[in-house]
Amino acid sequence: MSDITLAQAQSAVAAALQKSKEIGVKMNIAIVDAGANLKAFARMENAWLGSIDIAQKKARTARYFDMNTGDIGNLSQPGGSLYNIEHSNGGLITFPGGVPIKDASGTIIGAIGVSGDSVENDHAVASAGAAAVS
Amino acid sequence: MSDITLAQAQSAVAAALQKSKEIGVKMNIAIVDAGANLKAFARMENAWLGSIDIAQKKARTARYFDMNTGDIGNLSQPGGSLYNIEHSNGGLITFPGGVPIKDASGTIIGAIGVSGDSVENDHAVASAGAAAVS
Amino acid sequence: MSDITLAQAQSAVAAALQKSKEIGVKMNIAIVDAGANLKAFARMENAWLGSIDIAQKKARTARYFDMNTGDIGNLSQPGGSLYNIEHSNGGLITFPGGVPIKDASGTIIGAIGVSGDSVENDHAVASAGAAAVS
Amino acid sequence: MSDITLAQAQSAVAAALQKSKEIGVKMNIAIVDAGANLKAFARMENAWLGSIDIAQKKARTARYFDMNTGDIGNLSQPGGSLYNIEHSNGGLITFPGGVPIKDASGTIIGAIGVSGDSVENDHAVASAGAAAVS
Repeated sequence: MSDITLAQAQSAVAAALQKSKEIGVKMNIAIVDAGANLKAFARMENAWLGSIDIAQKKARTARYFDMNTGDIGNLSQPGGSLYNIEHSNGGLITFPGGVPIKDASGTIIGAIGVSGDSVENDHAVASAGAAAVS
Repeated sequence: MSDITLAQAQSAVAAALQKSKEIGVKMNIAIVDAGANLKAFARMENAWLGSIDIAQKKARTARYFDMNTGDIGNLSQPGGSLYNIEHSNGGLITFPGGVPIKDASGTIIGAIGVSGDSVENDHAVASAGAAAVS
Repeated sequence: MSDITLAQAQSAVAAALQKSKEIGVKMNIAIVDAGANLKAFARMENAWLGSIDIAQKKARTARYFDMNTGDIGNLSQPGGSLYNIEHSNGGLITFPGGVPIKDASGTIIGAIGVSGDSVENDHAVASAGAAAVS
Repeated sequence: MSDITLAQAQSAVAAALQKSKEIGVKMNIAIVDAGANLKAFARMENAWLGSIDIAQKKARTARYFDMNTGDIGNLSQPGGSLYNIEHSNGGLITFPGGVPIKDASGTIIGAIGVSGDSVENDHAVASAGAAAVS
């Protein structure tokens, strides 16, 4: 299994922190490896305490299903094909902010989850972090 | 980080109890500190037992995201940007009754959660408690 | 069922706080009612965060079995008749600091749990709180 | 309440990683803030997966009681005054590897937990991390 290294995880965190500062938001940033286990984490000063858990759940959710968390959320609404999938795995988060991390060859080697602001900003910061690796 | 004192927490509880008696309701009242840890609690005679947990979850939720719990609930409905956020953090409560507590300078130093009656009354009592500190 | 009132619970908390100040310790103090449900709580400035849960578990444990928590701990040691009873009820605490609260007639109407210093001081403060009611 | 900054937390992680490399061990390293909430985390390549949770629990335990986790373990043995305290707070870890983090004035502003090798090495790495801040 190709797996993210700590150096790659830390570069994703650094890129996400940089992006957060550029757009003026306070974020929690979590990186999981190919096995969906926590690899790196950082919380900015005064970032929401409730987002510690959400950032980690977004990262795990993105790797659990190898897609952006927001894509799962589109399917988990009432009447949707994955309605209430959030009850599985000890709690999933299916709104935007979780993004798979790929290596240069396109293989998924982990995921990043970001929480602390609007879901649009969470997704933008997560994407910046993931891009720093691939 | 500025943090609520026990004296401030107890004055918030006292103000909430006073408000509860004025409007004739039986409440559970929880105060958490800046770190979202329980600081003070009081349950009135014959107040709902199920509200012991809800009052504490409301207080934590309000501090976790530094906003009134009802504001989060507006975003966590089906189709909303934070749909099913309640699955995070071991269970959030996102209907009204949780209110951040600010000091005189406007800094958030904790939160109050109230549960035991209609969400409108829960919110009114929580607001009275928070106002006693700021 | 005879049950502790909020006024009685608050007087037990006040007596426990007074005792804590006299002996110079920083405590978490929890009161449960006859149904072993949380009735009142207070945490002094800079009291151990890990004692929030322990104080509540001591109070519940004392009411669950209508005896001082330390008495249960004597029976839960390796080879004892209640070995590892701490695994039940979502986690019990069986070292000193939990004391049943009786009314003037000797009926148990709740319990107090105190945590934040040595088990001897925890027990002394809990006893002072319980004595304020009976 | 004085609180650890992200920069301080990251310098503690960096010092702990450096120490780990010096002694040739693979570690999980967790930092919590003054409120015992996760602030930073890093897992080295091939470090034990089971230590992700243990490192975090060690950090929280050290801040919960403002002492090294091993000191608590000395009191939680059979016959000890804190026997089975590990059942509280959703699970404590009371063997060495958790160390409070102090600022230059000696105030506790968070804690570090390290897990991945012998408890002696875990403690040595945690101490190196904490020393980088104070």
